[in-house]
Amino acid sequence: MNYHSMSADQLRETQSDLRKLYDALCAAGLQLDLTRGKPAPEQLDLSNALLSLPGDDYRDSAGTDTRNYGGIVGLPEIRQIFGELLAVDPANLIAFGNSSLELMHDLTVFALLSGTVDSAKPWNADPIKFLCPAPGYDRHFSITETYGIEMIPVPMLPTGPDVDACAALTAKDPSIKGMWAVPTYSNPTGVTFTEEVTRGLLEMPAADDFRIYWDNAYAVHTLVDEAPTPLPVLEMAAAAGNPNRVFVLGSTSKITFAGAGVSFFGSSTENLDWFKRHLSFKTIGPDKINQLRHVKFFGDADGVRAHMAKHREILAPKFRLVLDILDDRLGDSKVAAWSQPEGGYFISLDVIDGTARRVIELAKEAGIALTAAGSTYPYKNDPLDRNIRLAPTFPTTDDLRTAMDGVATCVLLAASETLLGSRES
Amino acid sequence: MNYHSMSADQLRETQSDLRKLYDALCAAGLQLDLTRGKPAPEQLDLSNALLSLPGDDYRDSAGTDTRNYGGIVGLPEIRQIFGELLAVDPANLIAFGNSSLELMHDLTVFALLSGTVDSAKPWNADPIKFLCPAPGYDRHFSITETYGIEMIPVPMLPTGPDVDACAALTAKDPSIKGMWAVPTYSNPTGVTFTEEVTRGLLEMPAADDFRIYWDNAYAVHTLVDEAPTPLPVLEMAAAAGNPNRVFVLGSTSKITFAGAGVSFFGSSTENLDWFKRHLSFKTIGPDKINQLRHVKFFGDADGVRAHMAKHREILAPKFRLVLDILDDRLGDSKVAAWSQPEGGYFISLDVIDGTARRVIELAKEAGIALTAAGSTYPYKNDPLDRNIRLAPTFPTTDDLRTAMDGVATCVLLAASETLLGSRES
Repeated sequence: MNYHSMSADQLRETQSDLRKLYDALCAAGLQLDLTRGKPAPEQLDLSNALLSLPGDDYRDSAGTDTRNYGGIVGLPEIRQIFGELLAVDPANLIAFGNSSLELMHDLTVFALLSGTVDSAKPWNADPIKFLCPAPGYDRHFSITETYGIEMIPVPMLPTGPDVDACAALTAKDPSIKGMWAVPTYSNPTGVTFTEEVTRGLLEMPAADDFRIYWDNAYAVHTLVDEAPTPLPVLEMAAAAGNPNRVFVLGSTSKITFAGAGVSFFGSSTENLDWFKRHLSFKTIGPDKINQLRHVKFFGDADGVRAHMAKHREILAPKFRLVLDILDDRLGDSKVAAWSQPEGGYFISLDVIDGTARRVIELAKEAGIALTAAGSTYPYKNDPLDRNIRLAPTFPTTDDLRTAMDGVATCVLLAASETLLGSRES
Repeated sequence: MNYHSMSADQLRETQSDLRKLYDALCAAGLQLDLTRGKPAPEQLDLSNALLSLPGDDYRDSAGTDTRNYGGIVGLPEIRQIFGELLAVDPANLIAFGNSSLELMHDLTVFALLSGTVDSAKPWNADPIKFLCPAPGYDRHFSITETYGIEMIPVPMLPTGPDVDACAALTAKDPSIKGMWAVPTYSNPTGVTFTEEVTRGLLEMPAADDFRIYWDNAYAVHTLVDEAPTPLPVLEMAAAAGNPNRVFVLGSTSKITFAGAGVSFFGSSTENLDWFKRHLSFKTIGPDKINQLRHVKFFGDADGVRAHMAKHREILAPKFRLVLDILDDRLGDSKVAAWSQPEGGYFISLDVIDGTARRVIELAKEAGIALTAAGSTYPYKNDPLDRNIRLAPTFPTTDDLRTAMDGVATCVLLAASETLLGSRES
């Protein structure tokens, strides 16, 4: 029943029932975790062949001894495979270490300390700002927060970030130097940017050294038959007259092993030369053996696609289960709305304004860990206190069922408290 | 014959003979490279078992699934092994990615942008300086140069850096925030710091946030029977009342695979907490599988020592060959002096003042690549233009013999030019 239509007595009765459910939940002594987008062990098992690769052979197809120093841009073959998947010319793609977050961090640090190719001075010479589509990815926001970059939240629409809102800001404020973006199956909303939104972001007036961190972390992580075709953003940016605007990022963290994959950075030749020059001060090169290991494992881009189909077989039922429980337990109550992602790693749950923090607290007391309140917003400040990021990938199906049923109880209980409070006040 | 005792005629005659040798050298069409401290393929072969490790087993002894995210300090076992070898309590040692240079870069960046635990403000709030024992390691100097940190050369003595010179500078200048150091088999001089020098560096008055980058890159890379015992610098620093002064660095780059090893950072608990906090903004953790691979390969610290004995069998004859050629070709001439390293990766060759650049140029024209002139000094400025770093590890014995014989010819030819020039002027 729609909670908003209930009388105070009905709400009190409902709450009393929910309280019993909740007490039982607490008594169960759960220890469940829906916080992080971690692959489940069965997903990691799909890549166990990597554990014995590359085997005797340590040369790439060009004859490079991958065991030795050098080769800061990474192996050609792995750049070929992921160039195709990320819609980036392999000549404009670097394959690096085990963390694309590190690449984003370093891009930011290099620009802060030395400026980009289009900067008149280092970014940190004056206060600067980043646009932060929200809800968004907490680890993005942490990089900008730790370096004192002011974060401006901009709304996420079903088509991607609100381009008009972004353009209105960048057009008048040259201190806006960057923007976080997860263009495919966005974290946590699941939104995939449309071509129109993408073009709008590439064309909008902005500072010469304005950069979009195009974190295509879920480019091939589909849960449906038709995966979205990646847009050739670097070519589109060049066509829009802003060839240096985009930093394309990606990795195999959620394709092979989360801690031992390969990351990618694609950009204009000018940006790449800039990045390589700075990168050469901090490293002699990435782990080329791990790149070779991945080349031997995948073979080609179709090998990656076939591998992702196996992930989908594991993940689709988990996402279905969460969505079914949300529908079943919360569908009629009208106290929550949630995303129906076709890919990626998260489900975004919006509860009644002002209750997200309470839901997370109730869940915690019942032994169910949810991502900390506000995490999907800059400065952990969810202005309406309503967004909760659910990560269904890691737990077993049984744990996920138990946890989500518990979360639903917490959502309803918190809603009843809030609605009753407003009736009584 | 001692070139300094030669008459002008003798010098002219000698030079004429050398010119013939040199012309023959140029005619040979060589393509030899003595520039970088790269392991030879036979050395890399010693670690080929790593190419199929860890095999089916992906858990460490604590049961951690190394395939997944997390564990920013690295696996306990690898920290145990290298804690012993670096004389650092494993609790105070982080095992990280494939590059200790990256750790040194990041330590610098974090301090520049945010300050250390003992800094009143970020390092880059005002101009700062580093002490640079010279000759030293060019990649160290590149980090400080690229971030605009003023580099002050200090002399390297046979016992280590000149502590009195260092102390005189740090005592009166609180803007000196750091110092590069390679305490064992220093690059390029081969000098191992004595305990007295080490204590002096740890005790000398300096800014609260003065840090010594204790890059123990060659801690176990001995060419003789008795390897130096690593000093417990962190304990010594604490005893000296400067517990946060030292950043200990190390890696397996020249133990296993140069591009695919494990790096280490050891420091006080306070420094480590500071570093981990900053590190957590750029990565979710290092490649733990690669760490597990190394644990399985080595077993324990003795496994590393046994492995290094095999490196020594390959390297000692190469170093011997270079020293024999230098002795044979240059011994009587008195136009050069060189180190007799007991470990590490380099031989440091000092030629007549003002001729290093000419020697390197002559060698280049003959197809023998030497490390660029001045590289062992800050700003690539060797004030006496005399130091040349020789890297004997990578070439085959035959190539090394040919290259070194050519280098000796170039040294003598350049010396004859300079000495004759001074006679005639």
